[in-house]
Amino acid sequence: MAERFEIVQKALQKMLEDKKYATLRDILVTMNPSDIAALFQDLEEKQIPLMFRLLPKEQAAETFVEMEPDEQELLIRGFSDNELKEVLDELYVDDAADIVEEMPANVVKRILKNADPVMRSSINQILRYPENSAGSIMTTEYVSLRPDMTVEEAILRIRRQGVDKETIYTCYVTGKDRTLIGLVTVKDLLLAEDDETPISDMMLTNLISVTTRTDQEEVAHMFSKYNFLALPVVDGENRMVGIVTFDDAMDVMEEEATEDIEMMSGMLPSEKSYLKSSVFELFKNRIPWLMLLMVSATFTGLIMTAFEGALAAQIALSAFIPMLMGTGGNSGSQSSVTVIRSLSLGELKFRDIGIVLWKELRTAILCGVALAVVCFAKIWFIDHLLFQNDAITLMVDLVVCLALCVTVVVAKIVGCLLPMAAKALKLDPAVMASPFISTIVDALSLLVYFLFAKSLLNV
Amino acid sequence: MAERFEIVQKALQKMLEDKKYATLRDILVTMNPSDIAALFQDLEEKQIPLMFRLLPKEQAAETFVEMEPDEQELLIRGFSDNELKEVLDELYVDDAADIVEEMPANVVKRILKNADPVMRSSINQILRYPENSAGSIMTTEYVSLRPDMTVEEAILRIRRQGVDKETIYTCYVTGKDRTLIGLVTVKDLLLAEDDETPISDMMLTNLISVTTRTDQEEVAHMFSKYNFLALPVVDGENRMVGIVTFDDAMDVMEEEATEDIEMMSGMLPSEKSYLKSSVFELFKNRIPWLMLLMVSATFTGLIMTAFEGALAAQIALSAFIPMLMGTGGNSGSQSSVTVIRSLSLGELKFRDIGIVLWKELRTAILCGVALAVVCFAKIWFIDHLLFQNDAITLMVDLVVCLALCVTVVVAKIVGCLLPMAAKALKLDPAVMASPFISTIVDALSLLVYFLFAKSLLNV
Repeated sequence: MAERFEIVQKALQKMLEDKKYATLRDILVTMNPSDIAALFQDLEEKQIPLMFRLLPKEQAAETFVEMEPDEQELLIRGFSDNELKEVLDELYVDDAADIVEEMPANVVKRILKNADPVMRSSINQILRYPENSAGSIMTTEYVSLRPDMTVEEAILRIRRQGVDKETIYTCYVTGKDRTLIGLVTVKDLLLAEDDETPISDMMLTNLISVTTRTDQEEVAHMFSKYNFLALPVVDGENRMVGIVTFDDAMDVMEEEATEDIEMMSGMLPSEKSYLKSSVFELFKNRIPWLMLLMVSATFTGLIMTAFEGALAAQIALSAFIPMLMGTGGNSGSQSSVTVIRSLSLGELKFRDIGIVLWKELRTAILCGVALAVVCFAKIWFIDHLLFQNDAITLMVDLVVCLALCVTVVVAKIVGCLLPMAAKALKLDPAVMASPFISTIVDALSLLVYFLFAKSLLNV
Repeated sequence: MAERFEIVQKALQKMLEDKKYATLRDILVTMNPSDIAALFQDLEEKQIPLMFRLLPKEQAAETFVEMEPDEQELLIRGFSDNELKEVLDELYVDDAADIVEEMPANVVKRILKNADPVMRSSINQILRYPENSAGSIMTTEYVSLRPDMTVEEAILRIRRQGVDKETIYTCYVTGKDRTLIGLVTVKDLLLAEDDETPISDMMLTNLISVTTRTDQEEVAHMFSKYNFLALPVVDGENRMVGIVTFDDAMDVMEEEATEDIEMMSGMLPSEKSYLKSSVFELFKNRIPWLMLLMVSATFTGLIMTAFEGALAAQIALSAFIPMLMGTGGNSGSQSSVTVIRSLSLGELKFRDIGIVLWKELRTAILCGVALAVVCFAKIWFIDHLLFQNDAITLMVDLVVCLALCVTVVVAKIVGCLLPMAAKALKLDPAVMASPFISTIVDALSLLVYFLFAKSLLNV
């Protein structure tokens, strides 16, 4: 599939170079805007406006939305005012707002100057809402109906107004002052048995809506929970201000999952895709956690120094430190990541902390015992007998395995408690993942190990 | 929001206990099926059928779909054949197939016996497709039109057939033998200027479709890329067999992100949500990687043993081992997780390996140098001057920081290369994440450290 796409891409580029514009255009019109946008990424700068001008008006606008910000900027800078107007007229308001957000100030000024007044004011409205709020991802273009309309009148209104609306399939019934009072779907309207039925008799009134300030992550959850096509956005007085559509919710779901994954791995969330990020941006996102975790490893250093005597007396003990810390870190991050994901999918609430703790404790004991038994055998048969390491006595083996078992239990308890605590403190639980847990567990596992060594080996 | 829900929940349970069925029913009918299903989770076993029977037929079926498998099973076992038939008649085929998949054999037998013949054969067809394929998540209920129909005829057909279809908004135009030849949306039909226009004149023919065997992850990507409401599923001869709808694609996106996150943290993907998983299931998903990684830490043990002499001579060196391994592990997993996520979002392909390597190398050098400089100062001012540790000489400090810098570079290179290699070998790159990378980087960082120590400190 991907390979086939590359062949098409090469062929189209060749046509562009050979100036076979008519043929090129005939092929482009059969393609999907997302795929055309992907083509642009491999063009030279001067080829971009050339190919863009081959597209029919509507397809050009749809392709424009799917392009990367730097290509959009390049095109806008090259557009005449007229061309810019034409593209803007075809855009949905929320897409236009997204584009405006990515552009430098002088380009934004030109866009707003050339947008028609209604769009200009809508863009300004959307941009005023805080980032990651429902207001910032909504569109103000939806179909509104009045409760006293009949089915026939409603269908007529949709036919008249529908062309500019992002979705016509869910229509919102509003009363005085745009107060949201119900919804009807086009399916209900089409399947209605009597064309004269008033909308008020058939609309759904047990509505689920969000406010402009609702977090976009919560909005995305509601989509996956309720399977909506669109969700109404209201202000503090239940007045309709816009809708969020399922495709934007999908983007948010993907974005939020990526953000969680990045934070779980000790990175700041990135604004751009990997290939578009500069080396310095990657550095800026990665260095803070690395620095913090490196400095906090001072504690493990102090513990090692404190038990220097024990280590010097039984140098064989040091060989197992990496294994102990590694297993502890892995056990802890398994628990923390599971809890973080469940919290972020809304399957788990803070009040479940007792259940989580009890579940993790039993799982930890099972894992700890299983690992300790295998480890005991491994050390004895491989390290002691096979590699003939006489420093590894039965007692050393015992100390290592006891420490391993306790470390796993401690790690899993810490791993599940910290994200729950973060949730209770209204912090993002994703911060409490692998790197953070590992650093804490590293210190705890060393403590456990040396305490066992001290008491059982008399070092 | 969540708290408000709990208050409602308590009030409704009280009504059930007090046998105020009429009031309870009046409230339930205003609620969303997903929310009603959530109510059932906290009911006692004998209350479940009681409350379920209060729901009107259609709402009962919608709620049933949203319930957990164990509650569904409980209800089915309590249903009379007639009740079961009524619920089944209201279900969409893909939901029915999902339920059948979760039930034990004797329950499945009863379901298939009571389903009408068309549904029975559709369920059987869906269940035959491999797990995680487009065939297994599709529904066979869609609206099909013929190319010679007019707009008016098409709308009439939708009005007649629509009630049982999962979506009516995208209709598929099929030719002889159900061959897929185009699509029209209800929006196009409603906005068409002339009711007599033949469908063949207005249908989209540059179709994007998947086959029954396409992986569900790829299907979900196509939804988020193209913003489809539904995607047609065809067989090897381009004959229409079903559609996947956006809500199922959303579920797949969430599922696949969870699976990636679990694999990235060294766990086998779970089938059930965390709270529904038994302790033994959690154990089974977590122990394989823990065991494997513990045993593979034998290598780090061997390296430690090999350099035992060096450690004994300069015992201060051991204090920095946890910090070195920790920073190496974190640096490596930052790179691997970034690459894995980009691969799984389709932003990165194997052919980009050169770009990735060059980007990571430069980022690694920036991170490595920054960390080494800060670490050098920290060791000197805190460990040496503040804690007055005389064993930490300027030379020891230098060895630690050089090793740190090289470790970070090595870790980031390993971290980006392994997932790319996995991709090339058609393995799941998510396996090559933190735990796996850490184990490899642990060994490499020790080697680097001891080699620097040997050559610069003459130990």
